[in-house]
Amino acid sequence: MKYYVMTLFPEMVEQGLNTSILKRAAEAGAIEFEAVNIRDYSEDKHKRVDDYPYGGGAGMVLQAEPIYRCYEAVQAKIGKEKKTRMIALSPAGRVFDQSFAEELSAEENLIFLCGHYEGIDERVLERITTDYVSIGDYILTGGELPAMVMIDAVSRLVPGVLSNGESAVKESFSDYLLEYPQYTRPEEILGKKVPEILLSGHHANIEKWRREKSLELTKEKRPDLYEKYLAIHTKL
Amino acid sequence: MKYYVMTLFPEMVEQGLNTSILKRAAEAGAIEFEAVNIRDYSEDKHKRVDDYPYGGGAGMVLQAEPIYRCYEAVQAKIGKEKKTRMIALSPAGRVFDQSFAEELSAEENLIFLCGHYEGIDERVLERITTDYVSIGDYILTGGELPAMVMIDAVSRLVPGVLSNGESAVKESFSDYLLEYPQYTRPEEILGKKVPEILLSGHHANIEKWRREKSLELTKEKRPDLYEKYLAIHTKL
Repeated sequence: MKYYVMTLFPEMVEQGLNTSILKRAAEAGAIEFEAVNIRDYSEDKHKRVDDYPYGGGAGMVLQAEPIYRCYEAVQAKIGKEKKTRMIALSPAGRVFDQSFAEELSAEENLIFLCGHYEGIDERVLERITTDYVSIGDYILTGGELPAMVMIDAVSRLVPGVLSNGESAVKESFSDYLLEYPQYTRPEEILGKKVPEILLSGHHANIEKWRREKSLELTKEKRPDLYEKYLAIHTKL
Repeated sequence: MKYYVMTLFPEMVEQGLNTSILKRAAEAGAIEFEAVNIRDYSEDKHKRVDDYPYGGGAGMVLQAEPIYRCYEAVQAKIGKEKKTRMIALSPAGRVFDQSFAEELSAEENLIFLCGHYEGIDERVLERITTDYVSIGDYILTGGELPAMVMIDAVSRLVPGVLSNGESAVKESFSDYLLEYPQYTRPEEILGKKVPEILLSGHHANIEKWRREKSLELTKEKRPDLYEKYLAIHTKL
C-alpha cells in the first residue's frame, strides 16, 4: 500500500507518520508514504497557490491549477492505467468508520488532498475527487490531521503492519462490543485491587466475566453499537 | 490555553503540532503545548511502562503507576488548586464534535492521556480521567493523532489563534449548513467556467446563490444537519 498526500505542509505529514508502528511498517516495506508539496506545482513566480474567491468574501481559495498538476504528477508515478481513489476531506463526505477503513485497506495506492481553511476551487475537486470523506463533525485548521488519522486506521489493517500480538488484541468495533477493562501489575495500586476473578486462573470464568463487562459497558455507553451487536447475534 | 499531552511518543506530538497556524499561535503566546513522556516516570530500571494483562490474553497493558506519577507531575505544574480536565481517548467516550470543542476552548489547561493498542490499567483511568472522548468509530494505533485532532479543533476557537481573515471564513457546523462551492482565478480551467453570477458584482444575488447552494448541498449530503438547521430557523 502506498499513500500519496498532496499538501502545503509535507514535513508535518512525514513527521507525524514516521513514528512507532507505522515507521516500523514502512521500514519493513509493508506501507509507503509520500507527501507531495502542492506548491512545487505552482507556475507562479512567487509559488503562490491561492487567490481571492470569485464573488467576494473572507479568506483565500486554493487554485485548481497547481492541485491538478500535482495530481497528474502523482497519477503518472502510479501509472495512468491504475485507477486510484483520490480522497478529499469534506464535512459533506461519507463518514469515516472502521468498515470504510477495511474497504480502503484493499487498495494498492491512495491519494489524499489536504485543503486548508480557505477552501479549494470547486472545479478541481469535481475533476479529481473519487471520495469525499469526513472524520467527524468538527472543524480543523487543515486536512493533514484527518489524512493522517485515515492512513493510521487503514494501515493497521494492511497485512504485515501489526505484529501477531498486536493484531490479536481484541478490539472494539470488530464485533460491535466495547473492550472489557484491563489490569496489569501490581495487584494493588491507588487503593484498588485487581478483580479477584482475573487472578483465579480459571480461563472459562475469566472469559465469561470479560464478556459480561463488555456487554454491560456497550449497553450503557454505546446503545447504538449494542443494537448492532444484538441484530447480528439474533440472526445467527 | 496550555495543553499537556502524556504520551510514549512526545516527538510525534511536538512535531505534528509545531506547524502552520498552531505554530504561529504558540509563538504569539496564544497557546502552549507540552508533550510529557510517560516513560520518564517509570521507576523500573529498564524504564518499562507496560506488563502482561491479568487474566491472560494478547497484547500488553500500560501500568497505572508511571501514568499516575506523570499525571501528578503535570498537575503540580498547573497548580494543585486548579481542577483540570483530563481527557482519555475511548470508543466508549462522548463523541467529539464542534460544540464539545467550543466547551473545551473555555478551559485554561487541558491534559490528554494517549494510550496505545495495549490498553491502560483501569485503576488509573478511574482515578484521573474526567472525560472519555471518541473522535470517531475507527481504531487507531495510538491516542496521539486523536489528541492532536482535538487540540487543533479547540485551538482555532481560542482568541488570538486565527487571524481576522481566517476566523471570518464562513464555516460548516456553525449554523448547520455546509459550505457553498468556492472558485478563484482563472475564470476558465479544466474546461469549466466560474458560475456567471459570481462575476456579476451583484452582492445580494451572490449571497442568495450561495445560500441556495448551501441549502441544496446540506439537504442532499447531510439531511441530519439540515433538520437541525430547520429546527432553529422555524423557532425564530
